[in-house]
Amino acid sequence: MQIVEPLQKVIEELSKLPSIGRKTAQRLAVYLLKKDLAEVELLVNSILELKSKIRFCKNCFNLSVDDECEICKSEKRDHSIICVVEEVSDVIAIEKTNEYNGLYHVLGGVLSPLNGIDVESLKIKELLTRLTIENSKEIILALNPDTEGETTSLYLAKLLRPFGIKVTRIARGLPIGGDFEFADEATIGKAVQNRSLI
Amino acid sequence: MQIVEPLQKVIEELSKLPSIGRKTAQRLAVYLLKKDLAEVELLVNSILELKSKIRFCKNCFNLSVDDECEICKSEKRDHSIICVVEEVSDVIAIEKTNEYNGLYHVLGGVLSPLNGIDVESLKIKELLTRLTIENSKEIILALNPDTEGETTSLYLAKLLRPFGIKVTRIARGLPIGGDFEFADEATIGKAVQNRSLI
Repeated sequence: MQIVEPLQKVIEELSKLPSIGRKTAQRLAVYLLKKDLAEVELLVNSILELKSKIRFCKNCFNLSVDDECEICKSEKRDHSIICVVEEVSDVIAIEKTNEYNGLYHVLGGVLSPLNGIDVESLKIKELLTRLTIENSKEIILALNPDTEGETTSLYLAKLLRPFGIKVTRIARGLPIGGDFEFADEATIGKAVQNRSLI
Repeated sequence: MQIVEPLQKVIEELSKLPSIGRKTAQRLAVYLLKKDLAEVELLVNSILELKSKIRFCKNCFNLSVDDECEICKSEKRDHSIICVVEEVSDVIAIEKTNEYNGLYHVLGGVLSPLNGIDVESLKIKELLTRLTIENSKEIILALNPDTEGETTSLYLAKLLRPFGIKVTRIARGLPIGGDFEFADEATIGKAVQNRSLI
């Protein structure tokens, strides 16, 4: 027996989502089937609004409902520091820490020639333009500590040098709650290299 | 900083789904945000169609697009056997095995007085009506082997006795690929009790 067609279709669509396998998709579909129409409509409408209402900030390419995002508009933030990140989800992750009070710049990815992502596909030109306008004092590179992130960081550092601005990168070391036993050599090496006085 | 409102709303709605935590909800929401509108609409429309097109089979309460489900309508199925299950997802699970060729009856739950689910809330009356019409020869009770499922099975077995029909239950034993070491005593006990000749 085939699963009844409208259910089958939802399962297929849900399986396309990241980290949702077929079993989870089926459970979710059956759950939605049982829920009141009103509750399901809340979900569906929130997704449609997401697509219609959100755009990208014209300065930093963070998510926004206006031309400029809340962070760029805020006078409480330090406009002399720009933290360069890969994706909007990284902005959310850093904001959650409450440790950073500067601005952001979302690149929209990292350099990855094999996947066809080159300098032109990232918001690098826009970053350089901002530097001349905003009188930035420091650029923090907060890209993922993997090969592509490192390559992009080094590329950006070289590119930013002529501007005479302080360029820093986020620390690499053992994660809080981590354990030597499970850390790889590269991480432990960086953690020793980047040790600090306590 | 608050996450921008339309995104926040989608994250909240997605977190309400079973087995979706806040982190997964956020990842899904950002994924949807990046996807083309057309692809997101495919998902959204499939969900809306699920709600508008699917109803329950008038005989067995399985999912259906018509009055009667494909299984009840099929002449290839053995109409003299009815397999009683808890939920529509159990029908899908059993159908996937390709081991069963009879009909189903979806109870819509199991007896659970503490949660207010009594005989009246389940499709038990409807099952009894079917027996008189369909000339059934065997009822297979395929409820979950937990306390509530067992209670419901015993209740149904007692109720069905006067009809003079063969009432069976699915086997309880060690799962395929399972391991004695990880099985509980009750399961091992049942597996020994219900041993069969090979």
